[in-house]
Amino acid sequence: MLGRIYETQDCSAARALEIVGERWSLLIIRDALFLGLTRFGDFQRRLGLARNVLAARLDRFVEEGLMTRRPDAAGSAYHEYVLTPKGRELQPVVIALTHWGDRWAAPSDPPVTFRHRGECAGEVHLETVCEHCGNHPAPDEVEADPRALRTSTT
Amino acid sequence: MLGRIYETQDCSAARALEIVGERWSLLIIRDALFLGLTRFGDFQRRLGLARNVLAARLDRFVEEGLMTRRPDAAGSAYHEYVLTPKGRELQPVVIALTHWGDRWAAPSDPPVTFRHRGECAGEVHLETVCEHCGNHPAPDEVEADPRALRTSTT
Repeated sequence: MLGRIYETQDCSAARALEIVGERWSLLIIRDALFLGLTRFGDFQRRLGLARNVLAARLDRFVEEGLMTRRPDAAGSAYHEYVLTPKGRELQPVVIALTHWGDRWAAPSDPPVTFRHRGECAGEVHLETVCEHCGNHPAPDEVEADPRALRTSTT
Repeated sequence: MLGRIYETQDCSAARALEIVGERWSLLIIRDALFLGLTRFGDFQRRLGLARNVLAARLDRFVEEGLMTRRPDAAGSAYHEYVLTPKGRELQPVVIALTHWGDRWAAPSDPPVTFRHRGECAGEVHLETVCEHCGNHPAPDEVEADPRALRTSTT
């Protein structure tokens, strides 16, 4: 676990990374979000990661409230790991990473398209939106409130 | 380096995490993006991470084209590490993580506000937008479709 490795950082991004910044964490969340996986064996087969690592990640997600563990709805002896709202709301993080990877890290693969579920089926994008002017500012047109990014001194 | 640890995964999110999924990587990018840091010593003081780790991350960013290394504009003997467009476009990833952390992982800290630079100064949010219906779908209303690009859309 990253645990308190970012303890000098009082930024929310650091807190988020302490929970989901470990290897494989966001790929497990991705498969739960977009493939609807819930079973240990399904995650393990699809991701091909070590069982002890997967078990540690799922336990951590349950502990942190990103997933709940419940008896398999189909009545088997297995458990299901189901995303909570806290877990589901990591979706923009996964979409942002995927968009970036499509553009910069996997130029030869077909881009992943996100679609509005159901009848609409429109393409879904992630956009920065300015509440005041309604525009979509470019990366260098956005700044963070500096008070929120101050360093906590130790 | 994560290197090929996600080699079984053909998702762009996995490729992205191979480049920016190491400890501290996204926090270094965050400080370059939103605090405008460029010098080794400034990153090191603000983040408080080990110098060898920071050096490895910055070298990797230069190697991957996320930053360029150039002589200090002020004429000192130091170098500056400056984000390229590839690096700057990680901004939505950092904003998404920060929004999530504000909501779910740091409820007692003041939320980080992102603002449109300059006169506008409006608050900037990250939103999922459906191109077809114009709505902002909730996390469970979005699905991934890796084959979508091969079919014609209107």
